[in-house]
Amino acid sequence: MHDDTATDAQTAQEPTETDRPDEFTVTPYDVEGTVDYDRLLEQFGADRLTDEQIRRFPDHPMLRRRVFYAGRDVDGYLDAAQAGETHSIVTGIGPSGPMHLGHVLVFYLAKRLQEATGAYVYVPLSDDEKFYAKDLSFAEIEAATRSNLRDLLAVGFDPERTRIVVDRLDADVLYPQAARVAAGITQSTVDATYGDPDNVGLSFYPAMQATHLLLPQLVHGRHPTLVPIAVDQDPHVRVCRDVAAKERFDVDKPGALLGKFLPALDGPGKMSSSSDAPAIELTDDRETVREKIMQYAHSGGRVDVDEHREHGGDPSVDVAYQYLHTFFEPDDERVEELAARYRSGELLTGELKEIAAERIGDFLAEHRERRDALGDLEEELEPYRLTGDERARLRPSVFE
Amino acid sequence: MHDDTATDAQTAQEPTETDRPDEFTVTPYDVEGTVDYDRLLEQFGADRLTDEQIRRFPDHPMLRRRVFYAGRDVDGYLDAAQAGETHSIVTGIGPSGPMHLGHVLVFYLAKRLQEATGAYVYVPLSDDEKFYAKDLSFAEIEAATRSNLRDLLAVGFDPERTRIVVDRLDADVLYPQAARVAAGITQSTVDATYGDPDNVGLSFYPAMQATHLLLPQLVHGRHPTLVPIAVDQDPHVRVCRDVAAKERFDVDKPGALLGKFLPALDGPGKMSSSSDAPAIELTDDRETVREKIMQYAHSGGRVDVDEHREHGGDPSVDVAYQYLHTFFEPDDERVEELAARYRSGELLTGELKEIAAERIGDFLAEHRERRDALGDLEEELEPYRLTGDERARLRPSVFE
Repeated sequence: MHDDTATDAQTAQEPTETDRPDEFTVTPYDVEGTVDYDRLLEQFGADRLTDEQIRRFPDHPMLRRRVFYAGRDVDGYLDAAQAGETHSIVTGIGPSGPMHLGHVLVFYLAKRLQEATGAYVYVPLSDDEKFYAKDLSFAEIEAATRSNLRDLLAVGFDPERTRIVVDRLDADVLYPQAARVAAGITQSTVDATYGDPDNVGLSFYPAMQATHLLLPQLVHGRHPTLVPIAVDQDPHVRVCRDVAAKERFDVDKPGALLGKFLPALDGPGKMSSSSDAPAIELTDDRETVREKIMQYAHSGGRVDVDEHREHGGDPSVDVAYQYLHTFFEPDDERVEELAARYRSGELLTGELKEIAAERIGDFLAEHRERRDALGDLEEELEPYRLTGDERARLRPSVFE
Repeated sequence: MHDDTATDAQTAQEPTETDRPDEFTVTPYDVEGTVDYDRLLEQFGADRLTDEQIRRFPDHPMLRRRVFYAGRDVDGYLDAAQAGETHSIVTGIGPSGPMHLGHVLVFYLAKRLQEATGAYVYVPLSDDEKFYAKDLSFAEIEAATRSNLRDLLAVGFDPERTRIVVDRLDADVLYPQAARVAAGITQSTVDATYGDPDNVGLSFYPAMQATHLLLPQLVHGRHPTLVPIAVDQDPHVRVCRDVAAKERFDVDKPGALLGKFLPALDGPGKMSSSSDAPAIELTDDRETVREKIMQYAHSGGRVDVDEHREHGGDPSVDVAYQYLHTFFEPDDERVEELAARYRSGELLTGELKEIAAERIGDFLAEHRERRDALGDLEEELEPYRLTGDERARLRPSVFE
């Protein structure tokens, strides 16, 4: 929790690859990798998505390719979505710097789900947690918040069905609800889940985060909620589910949609600002994206062209391929064809990188165009903020 | 902290009496008692008020009689008060039930200081902490909040110089500031100061409480603040002073004015709703007050009238006398005369109780008259709430 948000975007190594991020390049054995992800699920008590569940979701590469590969209480969400009943997604971000490619994909997934079945999308920004967890000033966090908000607005959610909250900006309604939640979370739960916190802000933050996950239900009444989240962040959801189960909340336990990481350019693991290689930022132009991929993207190719032609490359550890597979090449046949040609040695690392750079460049150009078209931030955000009526449902009733 | 508010009103045993509340009736030896209070100060690093400091305060029985007997950084407050510079008092309450006599005295002291030197008075109501600490619903806490607010309004503070905040009601400005504070309070500080907290709300609450104590300075700029508080609550002030000393806050460390407890009717210790004897509530009429005092007030008299006439009573353990001495008999000569007549056996316990009941009845009749004259609570509170300008100074500047 303290190094990354609970809602960093996630994507995939191929599902057949080794999936323990820290061992991805070390022991790239399909079976071991698969077993590791299964073990995680067993340990967490979550379930692999079934083919049936994947079919019931609106079609999306990250679901089809099982970048999101597991979940909790997914059926309840799918039932409501298919029946046209209230259902919602919660996915947020911790504003500690510019948003990068690894952050934004989950928001585009949420947008897709919203467009397909009318899901509410709630996006919390945890500016408080970044202050608790990082050596950042509020001025720095506020600059990151403004930047992140512009990227969120650029995604193009439906303002009627989307609510963006910022913990300190919306504290009038979030803190009173978090207070309710906090009384139901023991310090020992926090210690056991996150390790001993450095300060009392970090002790409290799980209550704020659980409030985020309950917020759609606190506003719109009890209904199924789904939280798309990197699998290692599942403990956050479990803390919230435990609290939700306590009788004082008339809510469903939030469901989880558990995903894998978008690898950093220099190899497996989460794409993160703390990686040695630079992250691809949403403001990077085509040339910058291309340079970063060419220079840093970990290759699954051979040491030289002759050997590559003879033995072929390994797409499962090739970051350029991973990016295409995760999201940026939407055509399944084309992805399989790229993998086959790479394995056969026909396709070279440099060529694969060019393809990835172009696809990502296209995606970012469109995102950036919408971002640049935004006007005054406060005015642009207004349609996405909780309304007066919604706030009234969340505020304490001191004067009643 | 968890059993009582940080700002329960305090009053005195006579300064020459045993002062360890739990030993008051057990070992009522003057010298030992005095030593105990001194030890507390030594342990806390606070100082007894000097005669000079008492003289510099506006005249008030609780200061003159050293019910408030010690402090920290009192001179800075007195300097500002005498120079006509900004100075403020913070004294609050945890709304867990109706306010009783033991709660309200400190507010009348604050009013006196405000009238005499124009002190700002900030009154925080910790409805969040009561939820964290007690098995109360928010409906119960909100009822207590409304009742406590009426009593606070009945005190008659100057609305221009008084701000009443309720943690959840004013979370828009309190939580963002508490977030700043929270990053500077370690969990181990909280554990060491208050014991291991039951839930993460209690872990966080010291940050909210420190925010209360810093609030006048966060609104009006750096200036001396004084926190009248029961001596056992001094650790709260120390936590806040430690945070204030950290460089990110441009504030003076809040000063403390440390006091003794108003004894419960059935004997020494704090007057509290958890005592076996009933507390005198602010809504009690004359007859109820009289009955409670007659039935429950611990007597310093002898077993029968003859022995009392012969050996005299002990005012230092007589609760009726303590009440008169603390506040309700403002005339020093009269108080001394009552003590002398009680000691001599001339004045009987019943007679002393009648005098105390009448004085307290007078006080409560006036308080209740002002309380009953109040109209709609929300409207009455409005002039005491933080203004738009003041809130703007406390809110996060996300859109700047």
